[in-house]
Order: sequence, then structure tokens, then C-alpha cells
Amino acid sequence: MALKEYNNVQVGVEYYPEHWDESLWEADIKLMQATGVKVVRVAEFAWSRLEPTDGDFQFAWLDRAMDLFHSYGLQVVIGTPTATPPRWLTTGYPDVLPVFADGGIFHPGVRGHRCYNSPSLRKYGSRIIERLAQHYSGHPAVIGWQTDNEFSMLNCHCEHCNDAFREWAKAKYGTLEALNSEWGTNVWSGEYSAWNEFTVPLGGSRHQNPSLLLDFQRFQWDAIVEFQQTQIDILRSVCPEHFITHNFHSYPQKLNMYAVGAELDVAAFDYYPNTSPTKQATAPYSGALSLDLTRGIKRQNFWIMEQLSGTPGCWMPMWRTPYPGFIRAYAWQTIARGADTVVHFRWRSAVAGAEQFWHGLIDHSNVPGRRFAEFTQFCNEVNALGDKLKGTTLKNEVAILNSHEQLVALDIQPQVENMEYYENMKQIHRALTKLGIGCDVIDWRQELDEYKVVIAPSLYLLDEEVSKQLEAYATAGGTLIITNRSGVKNMNNIAVMQPLPGLLSYAAGVRVDEYDPIGTEAHVIVDINGNSYECLQWCDLLTPTTAEPIAWYGDDFYAGIPAVTVNTFGQGQVYYLGTQAEESYWSALLGDLAKKHQLFQFAGLPDGMQASVRTGESGTFLFLLNLNRQAQTVTLPREYKSVLYGQPRSGELQLEPYGIEILEM
Amino acid sequence: MALKEYNNVQVGVEYYPEHWDESLWEADIKLMQATGVKVVRVAEFAWSRLEPTDGDFQFAWLDRAMDLFHSYGLQVVIGTPTATPPRWLTTGYPDVLPVFADGGIFHPGVRGHRCYNSPSLRKYGSRIIERLAQHYSGHPAVIGWQTDNEFSMLNCHCEHCNDAFREWAKAKYGTLEALNSEWGTNVWSGEYSAWNEFTVPLGGSRHQNPSLLLDFQRFQWDAIVEFQQTQIDILRSVCPEHFITHNFHSYPQKLNMYAVGAELDVAAFDYYPNTSPTKQATAPYSGALSLDLTRGIKRQNFWIMEQLSGTPGCWMPMWRTPYPGFIRAYAWQTIARGADTVVHFRWRSAVAGAEQFWHGLIDHSNVPGRRFAEFTQFCNEVNALGDKLKGTTLKNEVAILNSHEQLVALDIQPQVENMEYYENMKQIHRALTKLGIGCDVIDWRQELDEYKVVIAPSLYLLDEEVSKQLEAYATAGGTLIITNRSGVKNMNNIAVMQPLPGLLSYAAGVRVDEYDPIGTEAHVIVDINGNSYECLQWCDLLTPTTAEPIAWYGDDFYAGIPAVTVNTFGQGQVYYLGTQAEESYWSALLGDLAKKHQLFQFAGLPDGMQASVRTGESGTFLFLLNLNRQAQTVTLPREYKSVLYGQPRSGELQLEPYGIEILEM
Amino acid sequence: MALKEYNNVQVGVEYYPEHWDESLWEADIKLMQATGVKVVRVAEFAWSRLEPTDGDFQFAWLDRAMDLFHSYGLQVVIGTPTATPPRWLTTGYPDVLPVFADGGIFHPGVRGHRCYNSPSLRKYGSRIIERLAQHYSGHPAVIGWQTDNEFSMLNCHCEHCNDAFREWAKAKYGTLEALNSEWGTNVWSGEYSAWNEFTVPLGGSRHQNPSLLLDFQRFQWDAIVEFQQTQIDILRSVCPEHFITHNFHSYPQKLNMYAVGAELDVAAFDYYPNTSPTKQATAPYSGALSLDLTRGIKRQNFWIMEQLSGTPGCWMPMWRTPYPGFIRAYAWQTIARGADTVVHFRWRSAVAGAEQFWHGLIDHSNVPGRRFAEFTQFCNEVNALGDKLKGTTLKNEVAILNSHEQLVALDIQPQVENMEYYENMKQIHRALTKLGIGCDVIDWRQELDEYKVVIAPSLYLLDEEVSKQLEAYATAGGTLIITNRSGVKNMNNIAVMQPLPGLLSYAAGVRVDEYDPIGTEAHVIVDINGNSYECLQWCDLLTPTTAEPIAWYGDDFYAGIPAVTVNTFGQGQVYYLGTQAEESYWSALLGDLAKKHQLFQFAGLPDGMQASVRTGESGTFLFLLNLNRQAQTVTLPREYKSVLYGQPRSGELQLEPYGIEILEM
Repeated sequence: MALKEYNNVQVGVEYYPEHWDESLWEADIKLMQATGVKVVRVAEFAWSRLEPTDGDFQFAWLDRAMDLFHSYGLQVVIGTPTATPPRWLTTGYPDVLPVFADGGIFHPGVRGHRCYNSPSLRKYGSRIIERLAQHYSGHPAVIGWQTDNEFSMLNCHCEHCNDAFREWAKAKYGTLEALNSEWGTNVWSGEYSAWNEFTVPLGGSRHQNPSLLLDFQRFQWDAIVEFQQTQIDILRSVCPEHFITHNFHSYPQKLNMYAVGAELDVAAFDYYPNTSPTKQATAPYSGALSLDLTRGIKRQNFWIMEQLSGTPGCWMPMWRTPYPGFIRAYAWQTIARGADTVVHFRWRSAVAGAEQFWHGLIDHSNVPGRRFAEFTQFCNEVNALGDKLKGTTLKNEVAILNSHEQLVALDIQPQVENMEYYENMKQIHRALTKLGIGCDVIDWRQELDEYKVVIAPSLYLLDEEVSKQLEAYATAGGTLIITNRSGVKNMNNIAVMQPLPGLLSYAAGVRVDEYDPIGTEAHVIVDINGNSYECLQWCDLLTPTTAEPIAWYGDDFYAGIPAVTVNTFGQGQVYYLGTQAEESYWSALLGDLAKKHQLFQFAGLPDGMQASVRTGESGTFLFLLNLNRQAQTVTLPREYKSVLYGQPRSGELQLEPYGIEILEM
Repeated sequence: MALKEYNNVQVGVEYYPEHWDESLWEADIKLMQATGVKVVRVAEFAWSRLEPTDGDFQFAWLDRAMDLFHSYGLQVVIGTPTATPPRWLTTGYPDVLPVFADGGIFHPGVRGHRCYNSPSLRKYGSRIIERLAQHYSGHPAVIGWQTDNEFSMLNCHCEHCNDAFREWAKAKYGTLEALNSEWGTNVWSGEYSAWNEFTVPLGGSRHQNPSLLLDFQRFQWDAIVEFQQTQIDILRSVCPEHFITHNFHSYPQKLNMYAVGAELDVAAFDYYPNTSPTKQATAPYSGALSLDLTRGIKRQNFWIMEQLSGTPGCWMPMWRTPYPGFIRAYAWQTIARGADTVVHFRWRSAVAGAEQFWHGLIDHSNVPGRRFAEFTQFCNEVNALGDKLKGTTLKNEVAILNSHEQLVALDIQPQVENMEYYENMKQIHRALTKLGIGCDVIDWRQELDEYKVVIAPSLYLLDEEVSKQLEAYATAGGTLIITNRSGVKNMNNIAVMQPLPGLLSYAAGVRVDEYDPIGTEAHVIVDINGNSYECLQWCDLLTPTTAEPIAWYGDDFYAGIPAVTVNTFGQGQVYYLGTQAEESYWSALLGDLAKKHQLFQFAGLPDGMQASVRTGESGTFLFLLNLNRQAQTVTLPREYKSVLYGQPRSGELQLEPYGIEILEM
Repeated sequence: MALKEYNNVQVGVEYYPEHWDESLWEADIKLMQATGVKVVRVAEFAWSRLEPTDGDFQFAWLDRAMDLFHSYGLQVVIGTPTATPPRWLTTGYPDVLPVFADGGIFHPGVRGHRCYNSPSLRKYGSRIIERLAQHYSGHPAVIGWQTDNEFSMLNCHCEHCNDAFREWAKAKYGTLEALNSEWGTNVWSGEYSAWNEFTVPLGGSRHQNPSLLLDFQRFQWDAIVEFQQTQIDILRSVCPEHFITHNFHSYPQKLNMYAVGAELDVAAFDYYPNTSPTKQATAPYSGALSLDLTRGIKRQNFWIMEQLSGTPGCWMPMWRTPYPGFIRAYAWQTIARGADTVVHFRWRSAVAGAEQFWHGLIDHSNVPGRRFAEFTQFCNEVNALGDKLKGTTLKNEVAILNSHEQLVALDIQPQVENMEYYENMKQIHRALTKLGIGCDVIDWRQELDEYKVVIAPSLYLLDEEVSKQLEAYATAGGTLIITNRSGVKNMNNIAVMQPLPGLLSYAAGVRVDEYDPIGTEAHVIVDINGNSYECLQWCDLLTPTTAEPIAWYGDDFYAGIPAVTVNTFGQGQVYYLGTQAEESYWSALLGDLAKKHQLFQFAGLPDGMQASVRTGESGTFLFLLNLNRQAQTVTLPREYKSVLYGQPRSGELQLEPYGIEILEM
């Protein structure tokens, strides 16, 4: 049976029928239709309305809403409601509630108060999903499901997690002897002599064994995947025509997004770009990375399940209101980077509950205003271009390797002040984006054949599977860029007894003789052209074995020692960056590589302007976005046709503040 | 039976007989008398001495002290000792101890370790008070009682609070259905299906339902009032001639001061103005607001129950020692703003316990020094003027409306970085004080007829009772000033579904089309005279319906849009300030209103100098206070007589650092 | 029976055989021998390997290591393993685990998870030590023992501590009446009416009775001493030829180091000087104080049990790598200040566990590098000079009095912002060190006869034993310098009822009339030569009774009032510093005293250079250390012979960055 379509390029909204007097529903839904909305997400927090007490299922109200959606031509994605277990469940079955490292309980009254390993959550969660699935599998409005809502790490320390972690460890290591050996627990007499001594890491101390901490994280990742699978199994079986998605939110998450995404049909992201002008120099780029990361989860197009519609706020102070054009421009940014359906959060601001000031498209007053008008424009534009854009995707020649395992391991043991795995990735990605070079951001164990350049920041944990793959990639002619803090550990978080970069030493052709963790104490490197750049965080003192140096330290006792090298390896090249140079160094390096490898590049982008390309059977489309409060001008290399405005464009193209253009290439 | 007098203008001290060897008592009390002290407060922390073990009452020691006070002509106020339950009580009846949101216990060994809802506290607290009242009802020295000491919010989460909160909610809402509906608990599936699911908000998360959080606060406010009432009932019945007071401390408190004050004869305040020269520009004004707030609790004169006598310190680092004149000038400030009796804390610094460095008038050495000499001067001055000042009060033409409910609601959901309800009130009050315009600060539900100008910052929660009253006030000719974040919610903390300022829209003649929470990112407004002012926190974009704009935004996408409006409403006018302009804007606006409405104003005050007027049958007295380390000069508009120095004063009047003057008008 | 020698001047390393595959052992130990290492510390964290399950003792592996050490001529110090109770112990006997003030448990998985009062820890700790002692008492490699590892205050709040503290208090005070009286518990009704009400201070509030808090700290100090004594008793009895030490770490520790040290043969210190150039101006001096403090524990030479070998890091971000010369220079600094054996931590960086990035002499790669080469040089130098230096000690004419009781009491009640007992001591010590004046830092109750100048910062707690001793010292011709916040309290933390400096008033010849806690608000003093100095923290306003003023305040209302005085007292003089003047004032004052009393001084030291002298039967040796990244030049007053380089030195002597010189005098 074929799945319902999930790759239309279209616009949606969140709508919570249960939040509003039923007398408002039809007017709301009618206005959605009139505005051009095609999809609605519902019900992901509605458990207490769907099952007010144990076993008392009440779907009639949702039926009425569903029928209304259908009668106005809107399609619906249902969220499974497991992120908000109702009070009868948490009161009657307190094992649902997570336990913090200090023994404190994650009390109900908020959301996300559920241990993924809780037997009661799994039992009652499966029951409500089964009922919902059975009830709506044949409803004509329903096209898909969202599992839970915004999975995030809770690192629960309850008894069930404790038991499950013990079983997990038994399954992985077989015996305590093996576990003791692989984790090096004999340090500080931490050896387990019997399984009953084995627990989740209690107390929250940073001094715990780092191998334990990493595996505990893996166990929790697996718990989410397993928990989600209980939902997917039901949905696949009962609603075989419906697609399944999940909405990830705000990176970096310590989730295993790739495993969570593996069983989904499509990934989704909740996107809230920072509205403050003080973040204008960085927010467009952080956002671009978030979107590229989401596209990388399944290496295919994705949904935005929540798109900024007004200032967020509530438990936290509100942000700035979105500047005119901001909502539209950032919504287009998602499509420019591979979103198909863009669901805006939310139709109207809630009048009750903890999210009252997480502003929707329409304010509490229910008077549509400036933001709604902008949303309407966006709907019209998307509806006009949807058919053209449908099926188009991004084809990039550069990839950045992302690893949640590196992220977590480097958080367990921060290497040096000022070094953040994700911040470093942002810097590289920003340099590429400013250069007008598109890139994919993918899991570090993915195949790399299609890329001309692959950048892998800090492969701190490493195994032969990856090192061999990277060697093969370079041998076959790829350009690989690796950085300091690579090859430091095996996958059990144990330091390797060989010179760094460990398993990558051969490919890099370089040996780290020693290193200086400089943190915030800036140093200097000088490149082969005599240009100086500031560097921070870390300085590896390099001895090239087969590589050539291309930058050297300019100060301290290691002035003159190589800082960056390049090694010819098979048909390809391997760059090693021993330090974290400032962004302009990355720009110079990557700019050179773009020329050398004739990478597709939309050069000459001014501040805040971004370019990306979607291509497919219907054509090739260049998106130009000015994510900026100032008008910006870019020079077009030739004449294009604006598919947005229906006019030819060439030469100097000025984009208004938050202006956008879509050109057919 | 008539109450003993509590409106003498006089000076008192704290004295703890139980802290000192009895051989010191008579010399101390003799010196009090010689210095001019008239009143002593005792016993508010003496429970363990008055009842060393369960039911073993030991009043003989206090009798001896009381008799000594009486023999030297000193009157006594007794504090009920419930703020410090003794160890036999907390050990034997641990329900006395408050429980924090995370389940931790407020352990004994300090003070304030008592849950207001504890059955044991109420039982044993009432018993000791009954005994004390019976014992001292006829003692000739005793004139009144202080309930407990410095009530403050504990937000206890114990089982008894849980049960009591459930009953409180039942009484307010009747049914769970009603409560679910009024609180909007269906958001995030927070609905209660049975009363046993209903608890105080556990865990301390800011993500809890804001309607629950607000009502929980109201419940805790009521618990204090109810707890105090158990004490008042005893005292009124056993000691009908004694007045009753309570000492509030350090604003803003999240207390319902007005309900606590309602059953008191007189309110009292514990006043510790900041001694540091770095706070000199603000402390005199924060202090003035504190005193005006205290006067507003019962809209009558008040007591100072603890007045700064030296540097505070102990668990916290010590402050600067009071500059010469500081102690006297700030004591006079309290009288200038409506204090009658001023009790200094404390006679001599404690040699033991946690308050050792909360300095008294006399140091540990027991050698009276500079500060004591200054106190002596103050006693002499007050004793010389007491008869003249007795019965005089402040008559102000301007009122600021204060609301503990707004304070708490805006704390539950901070609207924007940098916006603090109380800080905004301080800014307005400071502008008035610098202009030499006296004002009352009163509960927002009080009658307003007597005022020419009423300023109501952020009436965020609102009901028709208040909105109608404000409309009536303006209709009848009053000038009302309201600000942004008004009319946002109903009293259950639910957002209203109408354009802002909601229920005040009609009176203000203005509609908020949208808003920009600017926080710390400064913007500009331009007034009708072309003057520019910085504004912060918030920008409402206004469309006047019947109002006239009087200031406009000067930047961002809303440059030119009205920021401040005035609406003629009946005989009066309603100003709406859509943004938080800097103090000089308030000064300009209020200065204009002062001229327009011929408000009494002592204009031309230099930095740190304050003016206020007490008036009554004995005359009208202008207090001029230089709360400043620099001498300051002010120009007197005509000749006055100094009742302090017995000389005529006119023209340029110079006040020494911390100098004061009292002029008969 | 004579103890094995512990006063050789020699070099050692930490080695953890249990961390490494046995195949690595012999190569490692062979390299130690070749490098010149003489001593190894082992086993202090090896409990789980020595006793994998309850009663199953496994010493064979350690025997094999011991035999190897012996066969390569290395001597061994064994650490008792009680700092890391194994999991079978913590699981089976959870009383081993400390309890925090809030009731939380110090969970296993890290180290130091042991309550010193735990019956199970004492029982099982004694058992393993007894077995170890019996097993190794006759092993030819073993020369001594380290008790536990880095004792530090846990302030455990478990049931056993509660009971023990109650017994401790009974023993000290006899009756509750006496305790109530001595602690002044009647303040805030804190009196105990029965012993069952008496507990350790729960909840962690700073508002607890300060007398209780101080005695609780004393109780915990005693618990460590008592716990250690159980170990010493076994070791003395079973291994009468072995010396006993303990490794203190990072000052200020709130330990009673003097009582812990009393039963040891020799004290040891773990020394990790800060490697960052941003700390270069202070780290050499903080380090010097740490070493002088350690030498003062027993007033004799000491060991370094852990000496920096590379950057530390792990749960915390890594520091900078040591600059070339840093490791050697700081190792020589320890010998220059009285270390005999210097054990480097650690041989090779751990590949597993929480200390992976606490770098050893050799990196994970097992390739000896720059740091190892520097260590080798140090070994060679020490081995060449060891015989000459053996038996030499420091003879200083100046002493600073240190008191853990002042440290703790001033932490319980911080007097004023910016005042830290230990920071003030650092300032004084730094001034002396920069002047080239050596000083001892000793417990405040030690005999002082040998010193010409004694400096006692803030003798806040005081009794007649000390005040009489200080009077006697001055009477006999000594120069005593005391500072503000002296004589404030008795030893039970109760303020004295006499003018300050209390018991020292007579000797100081001065009376504190009042004081101004100025904190960070800088003031000025002017000395007798008209020079102005900034002062901070505190200003005592002084009236000399018999003293002479030598500096006066230059501002505020006390301009012109004495700030510093000197009193001729018997044959000696007593200086009183009423304020905390900047370092240059101390330099001027101490420089004058050096001239006046002809103190030995190596004057003219440039930034970062330090001088000290070891003397003994084999000669007198002047150590000059440049603890600086810049070369520095010093002028030698005459010709000396370099025992390090075998050359004569005179006139200008330049030391390279981190260069050192040792001159025979």
C-alpha cells in the first residue's frame, strides 16, 4: 500500500482544537483554507482530552475537528500524545516520572515528564496510540503521524532505567570482567564484583568514569529509539498508508537523531531562529546549519513541524518581535535548504497554560495583524511555486561529518575552555555558507562517495570502520579535512596508546608530538602566503611524516612548528588542522579548495545573504535570501528568471531587508 | 475599652533581655531612659526561654525585665515568638517545618522555620500566645503586640499545605471541572480527573501552569493571614487595651500586605537603608518608596519597628558603616513620611548567634560611640518635637497603585528581560520624589477620589471591578496614567481575547496593534516638543482610537508610530505609555501635570534632597532632608520657621551632609 | 628500630601497575631506573584489585610489581587505599558513603566517597591495611606509607556523624546547659532541651549558629585525625621500620593539617602550579606559600608526593601545557623551599578513568617527549647534588602565623566583601618573597622564640594562651605585626565585650573606636613619609593608647585618624594595621623592618624570580629561580660557586626563562 504524500511543497499550521471553544473552530479552519494552508498538526498534547480517565477514550471532539478539517480540504498529521502523560496516569503509575541524578523527581504539571523505559508509559502509551490509530486509520483527512514530541535526553535514573541499563550492559559486554576491562574501572577501585553493584551513574558528579558516562548516554539513546519503535510498530500495522515523522528541535541535541530517524519516513524540525538584531550576524548561519543537519538525518528532504510565527516566551522572557519580512524569509530559508512542508507554530497564541506567550500567527486578541499578513504572502508564494519545487532536492559537493557521540564524549570531558564541538562545526559551516558553497551535514558513518570535499571536525572517538572508510575516500580522490582532537580514543572512551591523530595518522601523514590547550589565550598561525590568523582552543605541535606543512605557529615556544598540513594520499588529499583558526582562515582554505576542485559556489554574498540550490526534474532553482535588517546587493553572474516575481534578473540584484528571490537556473 | 496610644511621635529600641547577663539589665535600661527612649520591643524570638520544654512556661525572667522597664518609664511591645519554634517543638512535631518544592526540609537552627499551615505550629503557637497574653494583659508597661516577625513567603510544599491548598481550591472553584476550565489545564494534558491528583506545584519548574502558580501564591498569602488571625483573635480577646502591629520588611515582598494589615491597628516596617556611597543615588529614593508603601498598607501613619543603627552583616558580608548623620537623617526620613514611633534595631550588638554583626547602637564592647551619640541627638530632637508632630499626617494629591498580584504574576511569567514591576514603580516614584511631589502608594483596589493624579504601572491582571473604578475615576475628572502590559490577563492568569489594553482600551482610547519586547536593546521616543528619550523593555505599537498621540517611536520599523497617548475621558484624562521611557521622560510628563493640575510641589531639589509635608491640627511641617554625603543647597520660596533649630529660614538654605531641617509652614 | 630514610634529596614517580598490562611493567621500571628515579608511590587507589570481594585478598600482582621495583633498585611508598572504597563495600555497607547537608548521598563511582566516621569504613579499612602491612612489612623495596590520599573536608551529615558529633559535644561541654551557654543558643530560640534534639547542622543554611558551625568543623577535623590514627596504629605496630606520611593538597584546605601531621614522620604535598602565562604574576608566589605552609606543618623538610608533569584536566578543561623549563624549575622550587623527595605525578597518562587527561611525564602514546626530557634533566641534577643537599634546611627569621580556625571562622561569617583570610596571607607572603626575605608559615600556637619578626593576620578568634604568648614574644624583643579583625571572638566564636583588638589591646597599645567595612570601595592611607597607598576591605578607626601612629587615613570622615600604629612593648614592638593596605605598603613596611633588624635578604629580585637558602653541615646553598617566561637578570653581591653548573658566578647573572641557579654561599 502506498504512503500518503509527504513531499508536497506546502504550508501548514499547528492547531489545538482542545484549547478553543468549539464555536471558534469553523471560523479558524475556514480562514486557514482561505489563507492557503494545506496541513494541520493536532493532538500531540491532548492525552487528557482523548482519555480523561484510565480507559475512558473520548475521540468524538477530535472527530468533529477532523471532519471540519476535511470539509475545508485540510490534511492532518496527528501527534502521539506520549510527551504529556495525564495526571491519572502519573498519579496512579508514578514509574512514568523520570528521576534525576540526585534522586529528585521530574514532577508532572509541565511536559516531557516521562521515562522512556517506564513500563506504565509503554503500556498506556501503546494503548492510546493503538486506539487512535484504529480510530483514524481510515479518516480521509489524516495523512501521517508524528511520534511523541521533541524527544530529548532526560538521563533518567529510576529503578527501571537501572535494570534496563544493567541488561543493556550485559548484552554489550557479556560479563562483568569484560565490562571492567573495557571501561578501565580499576582506576579509583571502581570495579564491579557483582551485577547488583552496577547502577546508572548516580549523583551527577563529573568525576564519574567517562566510559560509563558515554555508555549510559548510548543506553538512553537506545531507550528513545526503542520507545519510538513501540509506536511505529503500531502505526505501521494499523495505518499502513500513513507516513511517520518526528519533530527534532534546537541543535545540538545529544540524541542519536540518526537512529531515531532511521525508521521514520521523513524527519521534521522545529525552527525558531533568534529574532534579535544582536544575533543577526550569527542566527542566519546557525539556522542554516540546523536545516542542513535535519536534511542530513535521512539524507532527504524534510518537514518543518514548527516554524516561528511570533516572539517566543513564557517561562523565559519574550524575544524581539520578528522584523517585517523575518517570518517569510526564514520560512523560505527552510525550503531553500530542503524543507517540503512548513508547519507554522501556532495558529493563535494560547490564552492558558505555560505557553501563553509563545506567540502564534494570530495574537490572543484574535485580530490577524502584520505577522498574519506576512504568513498569507508566504502561503500564496508557496502555493504558486509548490508544483515546480516538488521533488527538487539539494545536491552538494561538500559534506561535514556530524557525530552525536563526539558531541557527548567531548561534553563528558571538556578538552579545554572555549572548545565546543558544535560551535566549531558552526564556524566551518558558516565559512562555507558565506562562501556560497552548499554542504550536507551527515552522520559520520555515512558513505561519502558523492562528495568532493569532506570535513570532519574532531573525530575524538574513532574506530577502524570509520578510519578505513576515510582512508578509502581519500585514496579514491576525495579531499578530507580533519582537525585536532581526532583519533584520541576508542569507542569505549579509552585513550589510544599511539601518537595522535591515532588511527588517522597514516592518512594525515603527520604526528602530534605534543599539544598546548590554549583555550581563550589567543595564538597566531602564519600560512604559506605569509598571512597571519588568530587561533584559539588548541595547538597541536606537528611533525609531518609524509605531509607538507601549509601553516606554522607564529608565537610561543613552538613558533615555526607546523600547525596545518596536507598529505597526498592515494588520489586524494588529507588536511590536518592542529589548531582552531579563526573563520577567515577557514574561508581562505575552503575558498582555495573551491577553486581547485571547481565546486559549485555562488560567490560574492554580502553579510547575511545566503544562496542555495534545489534541483530536480522540474528545474534548478537558486534561492537568494537576505536574512538581514539592511538591504543587500549581490551581482548575478548572468541572467536568470525570477520564478517568484516572473521577471528576468541580471547584474546587480538588490534585496530589501529580509527580501528573497528565487531564480530558475 | 480604648486602645493604648500608638500614635505618639517617639523613639524606641529593641532589647533582648535573654541575650544578656541579668547584671547588665538595669544599667542598660537606665541609659535608655537617660537617652530619651520611650518604647522597647521584646521577646519575639524568645520562645525557648518562655517555654523551655513542652508546657513548662517560664515568664519570671521576663517579668523582672518588664518591671525594670516600667520602673524607668519605658513602654513595651511584645513580639509573639512564632517565628522561632523551639527545638523541642520541631523535634517532637516535625510538621512545623516547611518543605521546599524539591522535597527538601527547612531545618531548624535558623529562624522562620515554620509552615503557616502546620497544625502543631498553630496549636502550640496559640498556646504560648494565650499564656503570654494572659500574663501580660495587665502589666502596666505593656502597650501592644507584634504578631510573629517579618512574615515572608515560604511556599511550603508539605502534606498539610497540600491538603489545605486542595480545600482552598475546592472552596474557590467548587468542582474540578470548573478549576480545569478556569486554569486551562487541558494545555499539555494537565487536567485533573480526581482531587487526589491535585497537589501544590512540586519540583519548582517555571514551566508549571501559570494559573496554578498564581493561585498557589494566593493560597499561601491567605495562609499567612489566617495564621495571623489565630494570634489576633487571642490578643483581642485577652488584651483588649493593647494595639496589634506587624513588622514588614524589605520590599518588594510577595506578601498580601494589605490583607495582613487589615486586622492590625497599625503597620510597621523594618528599615535598613543601604549605607554604601555607591548606592547614594538610589537608596534614598528606594527608601522613600518603602516608607510610602508602608504608609499605604493601612493608609495611615505607621511604626518603624527596626531602624538601622549600624552596619548589618553576619551570614552576609557587612555593609559600610553609616556616615556621620546617616542614622539620624534616615530616622527623620521615616517620620517625614509618616512614621510615628521609630524603634531602633538594636540596643547593643549580639555577642552570640547568627546576628552578631548586625550592629546595634552600641558595639560589642559596650562602649557607646559615635553612632550612639547620633541616636541620642535624634531622641532629643524627637522628644522636643513629638507633641507638635503627633497627629500630623501626609496629604498627597498623587497616588501610585501597587499590586502584589501583578508583582507575582509578572514574576511567574517574566515578560521581557530587564522588566521588573517593582523597578518600574521605583522609577516613577523616584521621578515624583525628585520633583518634590509627594505621593501615596496604595493597593490597586483602593478608592481614588482624593487624588488628582493616579499612576498605575502594568495592570497586567485585570477585572471589571478595577477597570470600572478607573473609568469612573477618570470620568469624574481624574488624571490616570497607565502603562504597557495592562489588561493582558484576567484574574486567573488567562490571556484575554481582545486587543490590549483589554478592559482599559475604552478609557485609554487606544489599541495595541502589536508589540516588540525590546528588553535591554534601547530604542528612542520623540515627544511632542521634539525631545528624544531612550526607552527600554517594551514597545507597544499604538493606534489611537479616541486618544491623541503625544510621543512617537523614533526608530526601528515602527518609527513614527505613536508610543504615548492621552485620551480625554469624561472630565478627566487617561495617559497610556506604550513603552518604558527613561526617568527624564517621566520627570517631564509629571512636571507638566504638576503645573497643569497645580499639584503641591517643592521644586528645585538638588541631588539626594527630599521634601515632604506632615500636617494636622498642630500645624503644617515641611521636612527637608539631605540624604547625601555632600552639602546641598535649596532655595526656599519664602520665609519659614525652623522648628528644629528655632530660627527663621529663607532664601538659600544649605544643608550639611545628611543634614535635615523641619520648617513650619 | 630505626626508620628507613626519608630525607634523601631525590626524585620519584607515581606508578599504577594495576592500570597497565603487565607486559609493560618491566620496560617502564627499567626506564625509571635509567632516568634516575629512586622512589615510586603505589596502590593508594587499588583496593578493588587488592581485595576484589569481601575478604578475598589478592596481593600477588602487587608482589610481582614490588619485586620488579626492587630488582631495579627502586624504593616504594605504599598508599593505604581507603580513599576509594570498592563497590562491594559501598553496596554492602552503605554507611561508608558520606551524606551532604541537604540529605543527598555522595555516591560511589568517583573517589573520596567515604565518611571518616563510618564504622564499616573503619572496620574494612583497618582490615585491608593490616593485611597490607603484614604482607609488605618485610619487603626490601618498601620504605614507607602514605595514609589515605589527600584528606579533605566532607562535612558528612550521616547518622554516624550525628551520633559522634553528639558524643563529641558531650565530651567538650559536659552538659547541654553548658553547651547552650557557650554557644549562645538562646538567640533565635535555638536552645537544646534534650540531647536528642542535637544534630549536625542540616540544610546547609548560612544562618546557622556560628558557634555550632565552628564546632562542627572541629568535630570533622578530629574525625580525620582519629580516622588516620587507626591507620597509623596498625602501621607503627606492624611496620616499625617504615615511615608514614600523608599528601596534603591545594591550600587553603579547611583541614587541621597540624593535627593530621603531628603523628606523621614527614608531611607531603601535591603541587600543581598553574601553567597559564596569565597567572605568571601570582602562581610562583602562591606556590611558594604552599611550600612554606607544608614545611610548617611539622616545621621540617617535607616530600612532594605529586609534582606537576604535564597539563592537568579531565572533569575540568585542560590547562596550558608547561612551558619549556617549567616542570624542572617548579620541581627545583620545591627543593629550594624544603622538599627532599619530589615524586612526579604520574609516570604515564592514564588511558582509562576520570583522570585520563591529568597528564603524566609520558603521554598516552608512550613516546617520551619534551616533558620527559626535562624530567630526565631534573633527575640528573638532583642525583648529582643530592648528597650535598641532604640534611640541609631553611633557617628563616620571619614567621607568618597560619590558623585553620581563623580560616574557617572567617568563612562562616564573611566579614566584608573582598576579605579572604588566605588571600591576605598570600599578599603578605608575596611581599616578603619579592623582597628576598625567607619566612616560615606555621601554626599560630607554635613557639616563636627563633623569629625576629612574626606576622599574624586577623587573629579573629583568640584566647589567652595565644595572646599571652604573643605578649611574651614581644616583651622579649620580638617584632609582632597584627592586623584588623583580631581579638574579635573567643574560641567558641562568641564576640568579646571589650574594645578591639580585645586581648591584644594591651600589647598593641591601641583601641579600635569603630570600623568601616569598605570591602571593594578603595580608600587611602598616608604613611609617615607622606606616601599614599590604597587600602581595601576594612578600616579600623584607631585611638593609640600607648602606641605611636605611623600611617593615617587620607579620606572619608576619618581622614587624619590613625590607620597603622606601632607600640613599644617590653624589648619589642607591636605593629597594628587597621586596614588592608596594598602590597607596596607591606613591601615598604617589611623592607624597613628588614633593614632595622638586619634580616637576611636577597634584595633586587626582578619579577618572578625567587631566592631561598638551604643550609646544613654540607654547606649553605642559595637557590635562584626564574619562574617566568622572560629571561631575568639579578646582581650577585659577591662571587659564588654554582654547584649546578660548576662555575663561579658574580655580578650580573642572567637566568633564561624558567632558568635556575644554585650557588654555594
